[in-house]
Amino acid sequence: MSFNLENIISIRDFKKSDIEYILNLAEEMEPVARSEKVCHKKDGKLLGVMFYEPSTRTRLSFETAMKRLGGDVVGFNQKQGTSVQKGEVLYDTAQIISQYADAIVLRHDMAGAARFVSQNVDVPVINAGDGPGQHPTQTLLDLYTMKRQFGDINNLKIAIVGDLKYGRTVHSLVYALAMFKVEIIFIAPTELQMPHEILEDLNKLNCTYKIESTLLDNIDDVDVIYMTRIQKERFPDPKEYKKVKGKYTLNAKNMQDKKAILMHPLPRVDEISFDVDKLDNAMYFKQAFNGVPVRMALLDSIIK
Amino acid sequence: MSFNLENIISIRDFKKSDIEYILNLAEEMEPVARSEKVCHKKDGKLLGVMFYEPSTRTRLSFETAMKRLGGDVVGFNQKQGTSVQKGEVLYDTAQIISQYADAIVLRHDMAGAARFVSQNVDVPVINAGDGPGQHPTQTLLDLYTMKRQFGDINNLKIAIVGDLKYGRTVHSLVYALAMFKVEIIFIAPTELQMPHEILEDLNKLNCTYKIESTLLDNIDDVDVIYMTRIQKERFPDPKEYKKVKGKYTLNAKNMQDKKAILMHPLPRVDEISFDVDKLDNAMYFKQAFNGVPVRMALLDSIIK
Amino acid sequence: MSFNLENIISIRDFKKSDIEYILNLAEEMEPVARSEKVCHKKDGKLLGVMFYEPSTRTRLSFETAMKRLGGDVVGFNQKQGTSVQKGEVLYDTAQIISQYADAIVLRHDMAGAARFVSQNVDVPVINAGDGPGQHPTQTLLDLYTMKRQFGDINNLKIAIVGDLKYGRTVHSLVYALAMFKVEIIFIAPTELQMPHEILEDLNKLNCTYKIESTLLDNIDDVDVIYMTRIQKERFPDPKEYKKVKGKYTLNAKNMQDKKAILMHPLPRVDEISFDVDKLDNAMYFKQAFNGVPVRMALLDSIIK
Repeated sequence: MSFNLENIISIRDFKKSDIEYILNLAEEMEPVARSEKVCHKKDGKLLGVMFYEPSTRTRLSFETAMKRLGGDVVGFNQKQGTSVQKGEVLYDTAQIISQYADAIVLRHDMAGAARFVSQNVDVPVINAGDGPGQHPTQTLLDLYTMKRQFGDINNLKIAIVGDLKYGRTVHSLVYALAMFKVEIIFIAPTELQMPHEILEDLNKLNCTYKIESTLLDNIDDVDVIYMTRIQKERFPDPKEYKKVKGKYTLNAKNMQDKKAILMHPLPRVDEISFDVDKLDNAMYFKQAFNGVPVRMALLDSIIK
Repeated sequence: MSFNLENIISIRDFKKSDIEYILNLAEEMEPVARSEKVCHKKDGKLLGVMFYEPSTRTRLSFETAMKRLGGDVVGFNQKQGTSVQKGEVLYDTAQIISQYADAIVLRHDMAGAARFVSQNVDVPVINAGDGPGQHPTQTLLDLYTMKRQFGDINNLKIAIVGDLKYGRTVHSLVYALAMFKVEIIFIAPTELQMPHEILEDLNKLNCTYKIESTLLDNIDDVDVIYMTRIQKERFPDPKEYKKVKGKYTLNAKNMQDKKAILMHPLPRVDEISFDVDKLDNAMYFKQAFNGVPVRMALLDSIIK
Repeated sequence: MSFNLENIISIRDFKKSDIEYILNLAEEMEPVARSEKVCHKKDGKLLGVMFYEPSTRTRLSFETAMKRLGGDVVGFNQKQGTSVQKGEVLYDTAQIISQYADAIVLRHDMAGAARFVSQNVDVPVINAGDGPGQHPTQTLLDLYTMKRQFGDINNLKIAIVGDLKYGRTVHSLVYALAMFKVEIIFIAPTELQMPHEILEDLNKLNCTYKIESTLLDNIDDVDVIYMTRIQKERFPDPKEYKKVKGKYTLNAKNMQDKKAILMHPLPRVDEISFDVDKLDNAMYFKQAFNGVPVRMALLDSIIK
């Protein structure tokens, strides 16, 4: 098996074999990610971190991944205190960082920013989220979490719950899942259901799915519940939000006899109550950990 | 001797033997802290830094300590640019950082925050100051500074000066000093004297102390003058503040024939004038340095 | 050859032999700066970074340089989130950082700040720009870029263009160039020409120069065009600015048959249009890269 991408921009650039390559390599990285082994593979290498938007999880996960590989990091995690504040354009800033670092990881609020940068610099670029666009490394760690738990992504029955209309995370995820033989249930209030274009794409890809609007009576026999948060701002009428909110909430009581693992890209608001955290099938913090070996695998593959 | 704490939350969790263990180990760390020797003990290890409040000294001292040990650091030093800004709760953020790092060092404005985190994550936690609560690593470096200077903390006569009512630093310090055979003089304006509860605890612990309200006639025969700053905000009447301020100020002239070493947790405002800095007994910058070997000893002890 | 400076404060402290020493050493550093070789020379060493003003290029270039050398970095890159925010004076902050790090790199808005700090701490200090004062490492990387391109700085004909009155970068640069046998053309609107005092110094140093006010008819036979940005704020009358602006702008068309390399300290505003970037003689991003080996040479020379 081999990995043929130079940049990590969109999950749709991945062939199934690329995904499988990364998931396998991530598993090899786990002892280092868990700090049981010391690694010097990227000794002397630098990852350039360009974060134009706040992030803890994604940024620290990349920094952790690079440092666990023996490398180090230079960059910025907000516009303040940088030339960006002085009005420097993305193009110029990226040119500069590419002179310093062996690869760039970029988060930006503009869709297409990562592709644009990758076409203009001489080092590999990883998209860490470009506004409403893509967040491919999140998708890979989601897939890795499923594979780690069940040994295989094929034949899984997966409920995807919450804001399916605006959530870039779930959009990327379903395109990736469509490469495998899975059954998906989209569970969302009508106004936040999966966009029609995406459903049409899934039809073309022969992906099996169902549309549902209630949570509790649709998750009894699924293997994975993938929760996302529903943002207040999406509802013009606060009463509408309140009504919806309660129906898409999980707690220890309604999770008690579910066999499914429970995933969430985090941060959560209140769609998963704290009493769920101690259950064996609460997988969201483990999922956050999984970002480290997956990003180690990606960094290892693109930084020569 | 051995060290039995898994987390560093309050100096009151320390037995005298724990304190002695750390002070001895810190002395062994000095050549590395002074950059005379290179250390690889924590190669590949990561310290998770969660600073919810501004800090230069404490944060950089921890980062320096971890890096001198051969390890590295991931984290944040302000709420801005993190998921905290998006409203993520301390519990969730700490869960995430604990997935990335081998230990957490936390500064938070809420008393009890460090204990709370230590009870909910699987990695060791160090309290780097929790609001009005504890700041145990400051206390340990204060003790180390005394031991380094005099060879022993026992039999020292120590004047503690300034805001004794609100200063968390001096509260932690006196509980630690009470484990040794010392004489303490509390020098403060009446309205800022050591709280009654603490004095009662000192009585129970058989700790010898005196209460004084004037500085210059009470420091002739002490071994240590531990100055702290008096904050304007503590006084409802600015005139009252002005009156007090002048009386608790040291300069080269009134320090000239004192044998005592002069300590201060820093930052200072104007309670020690700059002309004191060149005196041999000005110990506050050396004290700041001492934070490095002491924190190296702590990190070395709790990170496996 | 040897290097005799303990601190890097002003280019005017450099003898010609010091400059040559650094330029030669920088060339040796290039394979490491380009990530072709791993270096452990500064293993265990820490650079203290004190940036009181926003910067991407200079700060990240220093951090990259120190990390490529095998060392690491502690510090801050803005006042926020530090004791500076609490009002700590530069003197005290510098004392503290000097207890942690093996050298300090300082950017400050006050001319003379770096000299002041270097006279008060026990570690070497590098000036990364002190307001209207000096920025010696920029000058060294500018010289290095010329030497790298032409093999020798002597006998070059150099046009320096833009805001020559307020630009600290060009002031430092001309004093350094005056040590070599070069011809300089100062091209600027009258109100932004090189200050009279500096021209007088150049006379004393027997440096050959011309004063011009038009760009395009004065750069046909030069070896180097050194552009700088003209800031709107310098003009009381916005119309005056608009008139000037257009006359000091380069694009692919007017650069097409120029043999000169084009340099710029960056960030640019619009004095060099994007279509110039792809030309072989556009040297400004390479110039940014050159900051890394030059700063590696400096750090290697002053950190023992």
